[in-house]
Amino acid sequence: MPRRPPRPPPLQAEFDEEERDAVLAANRAFYRAFNERDVDAMEHLWAPGGAMVCLHPGQAPLHTRADIMASWRGILRHPEAPGVRCIDEWVIGRAGLAIVVCREVLTGGQLMATNSFVRLGNGWRMVGHHAGPVPSIERARPAPAVPATPAVPRDRRKLH
Amino acid sequence: MPRRPPRPPPLQAEFDEEERDAVLAANRAFYRAFNERDVDAMEHLWAPGGAMVCLHPGQAPLHTRADIMASWRGILRHPEAPGVRCIDEWVIGRAGLAIVVCREVLTGGQLMATNSFVRLGNGWRMVGHHAGPVPSIERARPAPAVPATPAVPRDRRKLH
Repeated sequence: MPRRPPRPPPLQAEFDEEERDAVLAANRAFYRAFNERDVDAMEHLWAPGGAMVCLHPGQAPLHTRADIMASWRGILRHPEAPGVRCIDEWVIGRAGLAIVVCREVLTGGQLMATNSFVRLGNGWRMVGHHAGPVPSIERARPAPAVPATPAVPRDRRKLH
Repeated sequence: MPRRPPRPPPLQAEFDEEERDAVLAANRAFYRAFNERDVDAMEHLWAPGGAMVCLHPGQAPLHTRADIMASWRGILRHPEAPGVRCIDEWVIGRAGLAIVVCREVLTGGQLMATNSFVRLGNGWRMVGHHAGPVPSIERARPAPAVPATPAVPRDRRKLH
């Protein structure tokens, strides 16, 4: 956001509408990275270091950036990774920390995710992702089409 | 905490060790309420109003205090509600908002929970709970014994 004036340090800043929009933009960027299979964007989106946690459905928790990124590389490079659409975002935030709870409409089902973000000098970065299955709701439109992938043998590795 | 001096408003307060301890105490109070089947404590623990979300494993999200409390009353009064022990707490917080991710060791399996708390005038109150199953780890001791319950027919309603 190059046209914005310099911000005060996070602890003095309020969590205003502008910050809320910035958190929602970060959350959308997360799902865009997923849909576009963009490993670099996913790498950038997560905080560069420090404490973080990633909970893929039914899998053991991941607590290091290295493990979390390895899991996302596996998902994004998987030939049968589903498309995902994020709806029903619910946001709560304070200066420097925000949580987005949202519904993930996948090709083969629906999850709810709790995504956590911290505000660093260069914007909101993810520090937490917790996703788990929920009953599907009908009003959800289908997830976006999955990018064309080459014909490959069916891969049974676990997906997001 | 009657002996503590008056605190500045949350937005000016730092999330220091004392606040971290207070969040962990609130998280422990949540699991104590669960184990002691204490509906009143659970009612008190959740924020009195405003936006909140509760995601029991595999169930539809609950967004109103009325729905969330009804779900907890159902769980806490269920004759076969499991015991739960919380371990491996991971905390991230900023002034006024904190997240605890922890492992719930239940009688019949293990979950990971992402619990969210806001700081109100009278302390940290829950505004988010998201729990889902994870593979069990062996080092976890068994969950605490379930309180004695009267012999009743097996109840198949969904539990936490």
